[in-house]
This record gives sequence, C-alpha cells and structure tokens, in this order.
Amino acid sequence: MKEFDYHQIDDVIHSRIRLAIMSVLISIDEADFIFLREKVKTTDGNLSTHLKKLEDAGYVAVNKSFVNRKPISRYMLTQKGRKAFEIYVEHLENLIKKK
Amino acid sequence: MKEFDYHQIDDVIHSRIRLAIMSVLISIDEADFIFLREKVKTTDGNLSTHLKKLEDAGYVAVNKSFVNRKPISRYMLTQKGRKAFEIYVEHLENLIKKK
Repeated sequence: MKEFDYHQIDDVIHSRIRLAIMSVLISIDEADFIFLREKVKTTDGNLSTHLKKLEDAGYVAVNKSFVNRKPISRYMLTQKGRKAFEIYVEHLENLIKKK
Repeated sequence: MKEFDYHQIDDVIHSRIRLAIMSVLISIDEADFIFLREKVKTTDGNLSTHLKKLEDAGYVAVNKSFVNRKPISRYMLTQKGRKAFEIYVEHLENLIKKK
C-alpha cells in the first residue's frame, strides 16, 4: 500500500532554499556564490545560512580561492549530497504521484 | 533558461506534513482524522495544526458530523486546493528535473 510517511522526506534538502541550491548544483560541476544567489533569488544572508546547513550535512563542499586577489567560494555537491538528492527525489515523486 | 526561484514553490503545501496530507487527499474523495493520522504518521496535535493551515488557505474543507453519537471530521480537498496542488507539483518537478 502506498506510503505517505512524511519522515521519509529529507528535511535537510526539503527547505525551499536548500532544495533550490541542490537543484542548481546537481546539474553543474560547481557554482560560485554570486551565481547561486542569482539562480535561487535570495539574499546573501539566507544563502549563507542554507549553504552552511548543507555543508554541515556533508552534502555540499566549498572550494575557497583567490582570483585577482578577490576571494571566490565555489560550491559543489559531494558524493553524499548527490546520493541524498537522488533518494529525496525518489521519495518525493513517490509521495506526490496520484497512484 | 531554467528557473530555480524558490518563491515559486507554494509554502503552504511544501511543509512535509502538509504535503503528505495533500498527497493523501488528492487521491481520494475524503478522509477522516484517524485515517489521515495513520497515513501521515504524525501526532494529533501536529495533524490538527497543519489541517488548520490548509483550511485557512482554502485548500481543505472539513465536514463534521456524528456517527453513533461520536463526532467525525471528514477532510477533502477543495477545487482551489486541487488546483494549488497541481501547480505545486508542476513547479516542483520543474525544479528537481536535472535538465
């Protein structure tokens, strides 16, 4: 019988901003902060907070470097993050399917 | 170009418990409180709170009656709720699709 148990949905990914971040990162190798902010359409503060949560969960890794003496942070999904996203999408699709 | 704007995701539906409730109700005509609680696997308090939010948004209607002198509340999606769920699923699928 079909399950609707909401606990199956990974709360780390499900927050709307984190879901948008993961969705951007799943399709590209890496993205810098400005690119992510433009894609997700949120504020610096919100983006930082949610990226931090994804880093803490081990879903996102950050690569900090300097380009023309300016600091650049590049974000990418980890192997763990990719797997978690796949499982999340699977559970979500199962939940929202009508049958 | 693909959009990842998280504002497109209806926050009323997106909460995990409310999403589970809507997902149960989309596939059946109506459900009573006990049935919903078993399907969604949450507490009475949580279920009440989230059903109230869905009612306040006009997405869920409740039909209260007595069966053998016991009060029974039956919940169903409204036309507005069905439409909102369809739009939600569309935006969500667009967001999580890799391309």
